[in-house]
Amino acid sequence: MKVIRVAILGFGTVGQSVARILVSGKTGLELTCVFNRKVERKQVEWMPNTVDWTENIDEVFTSDVDVVVELLGGLEPAGSWIQRALMEGKPVVTANKQVIANDGARLSELAAVKGACLKFEAAVAGVVPIISSIKNGLAADNLNRVRGVLNGTCNFLLTKMGASDASFDEVLADAQERGFAEADPSADLDGFDAQAKLSILSAVGLSRPINPHEIVCRSIRGVSRTDFEAAALLGCGIRQVSTVELTEDRNAVRAEVRPAMVNLGSRVAQVSGNENVVVVDGRYCGEVTLIGQGAGGDPTAVAIVSDLLAIASGDRAPNLFPSVGASCQVEAMGKRSHYVRVAGPQSVAGILSDLGVVPARILEDRDGQVQFVTDRCTTETIESALRPSETTQGDRAESAVVLPVID
Amino acid sequence: MKVIRVAILGFGTVGQSVARILVSGKTGLELTCVFNRKVERKQVEWMPNTVDWTENIDEVFTSDVDVVVELLGGLEPAGSWIQRALMEGKPVVTANKQVIANDGARLSELAAVKGACLKFEAAVAGVVPIISSIKNGLAADNLNRVRGVLNGTCNFLLTKMGASDASFDEVLADAQERGFAEADPSADLDGFDAQAKLSILSAVGLSRPINPHEIVCRSIRGVSRTDFEAAALLGCGIRQVSTVELTEDRNAVRAEVRPAMVNLGSRVAQVSGNENVVVVDGRYCGEVTLIGQGAGGDPTAVAIVSDLLAIASGDRAPNLFPSVGASCQVEAMGKRSHYVRVAGPQSVAGILSDLGVVPARILEDRDGQVQFVTDRCTTETIESALRPSETTQGDRAESAVVLPVID
Repeated sequence: MKVIRVAILGFGTVGQSVARILVSGKTGLELTCVFNRKVERKQVEWMPNTVDWTENIDEVFTSDVDVVVELLGGLEPAGSWIQRALMEGKPVVTANKQVIANDGARLSELAAVKGACLKFEAAVAGVVPIISSIKNGLAADNLNRVRGVLNGTCNFLLTKMGASDASFDEVLADAQERGFAEADPSADLDGFDAQAKLSILSAVGLSRPINPHEIVCRSIRGVSRTDFEAAALLGCGIRQVSTVELTEDRNAVRAEVRPAMVNLGSRVAQVSGNENVVVVDGRYCGEVTLIGQGAGGDPTAVAIVSDLLAIASGDRAPNLFPSVGASCQVEAMGKRSHYVRVAGPQSVAGILSDLGVVPARILEDRDGQVQFVTDRCTTETIESALRPSETTQGDRAESAVVLPVID
Repeated sequence: MKVIRVAILGFGTVGQSVARILVSGKTGLELTCVFNRKVERKQVEWMPNTVDWTENIDEVFTSDVDVVVELLGGLEPAGSWIQRALMEGKPVVTANKQVIANDGARLSELAAVKGACLKFEAAVAGVVPIISSIKNGLAADNLNRVRGVLNGTCNFLLTKMGASDASFDEVLADAQERGFAEADPSADLDGFDAQAKLSILSAVGLSRPINPHEIVCRSIRGVSRTDFEAAALLGCGIRQVSTVELTEDRNAVRAEVRPAMVNLGSRVAQVSGNENVVVVDGRYCGEVTLIGQGAGGDPTAVAIVSDLLAIASGDRAPNLFPSVGASCQVEAMGKRSHYVRVAGPQSVAGILSDLGVVPARILEDRDGQVQFVTDRCTTETIESALRPSETTQGDRAESAVVLPVID
């Protein structure tokens, strides 16, 4: 096996873990170049002196690297640099969910045209080998649904709240202090991170490329201790759940990212800390579940270096994306039971009649706050009833929480 | 993509499921030949008339098939026919754990020499994509341990017992009637099926090829209702657990297949019915868990046809086995806590002193039967104390159950 020369763009936590595995020297891969802004401050003493450090991207491309590992994150300049590498026929391995979610189809096609390849196992669910499983072990099946916990930060916060008396803000502050949540946690908490990952799974797993921004997305920020008490009562945990499934006619998908009440018997409820889980449901295979660390330098690096090893062994994977331009329609989820908590000036009777939903079970109704479980209805029915309208002029939705109940 | 012509050897449940997927016509694979003994009685009306049915193996090899799918089971003639196909440079896909466990290294080397390849995802844990995950998504890591529930029949029986009042014999009879257990269930119940699978995982996952027959193997037949009551008391389930792990110096492995008390919080306890689970533990990735149906025509067929698709897309996988002849030493597991139930003429004091083990907790001691949990010791210590010796001349081991307690 010819030694493959590797450049790493971005020398943060994951980049350093990738470098450590590469310089351990057991892979047949040689790290030859590290790019980072202000690269001086990034240099580490354990790196062989054969490695070039640079803050000039042109130096990477004029060097003799065979493969580019992109770990910069964000749409630009990462997207342009991935494109540049592929244009030059250099395979690219990336952990960049945003670039793949938004431009993966075009870049994969470019890779195919140029005889390069574009691999992104690390872009979805960290070390969980979901992309390679869809492409390899489960390739023969037609998947109908992919569901999972795709954001380690949300899962860390929600399992922490489930196991303590802390409030959301306390748990978040603790996680930020310990480096498990970012200073600006919006991408994680508000679902945009999982939204991008889910759109990749729709394209790769269901062969239905979708616009990530069309996936309904709700924040976990509103979830409170009260909701966890209700969850315990219902035999559930609360998780940020991402779901994409084919409609019955298979011409569209239903997709969402939102906090949900998940039955404790479900695999989706059985992941804790920063674990991710992906459950695929296929015509022939039934349910197949994959669980592993969704974040962290070393686990993510395993996904990256495994992609590199596949390239080194001659794998020029066929384009995993269906052809460009065939973006699939995204619909809201179907009818199901919901847990609802509403505070405010309204009486429970008013809320319920506005909803047009029979409450299957009222959990609490006191202190101006009501918690109940609905019969099967769409989430949209409830959310639109809770939305401030012209006639009510109020903050009806303020501190309202709507969580679908998932088995 | 050139159409690949496929022959199926063995047209049982799995063979029929493979054929159905192939003739559905979406795979770029063409079924051209079906071999079975007394093939006449096997013919089905949904098969295209372009398919040749034969009971003469020579006809398969003189036909123009590109790939052979071996689903005969058992060591011979399956092994010889796999060899014959590889000798002719034809890739082979097999679900045959016995052939791969006993001869996989030699056959894989033969495949490499002949420019063919030998794939066997379906030989371990049904649809669970463990082989492809080890080879692809987790390739960069060094695994230290592989543990799992690898036999669907045992898991079906044990979860059934855990959820009912039925005795082992009742549950087994029911499973046999419904086709979930074979008329002669020995390979499943006594662990030989899992033993073969575990030896494959040792070779492929830990790069430590071992002689399957050196893996300590205990039957689940002795497990009774009493033991399930004790399990509930201990917050455990009972599972047939297969474990292989590197020793600290990495020069040997510890391996076993046996019924165990498994903490209900463990992923190994969270599979029910005929599900399989594989938990790998890596230096970088931490724990990664894969769960899916371990048996059944359709799930197993997904693994087989996925292997075929990989071959069709040009994947000539490198030999997954380390080089032939380097069989690794197999040791017994280290010290741990055990649940023990012993019936017989002896007093608990006598048993305990024979064991040289302090009981951490006595659960029951009545009706001539004692159940207790030990401090950490080796399983061998307990088993040898319970073995009939010349001096005791008795059936001390009769109806004794020793289950390690696993977190």
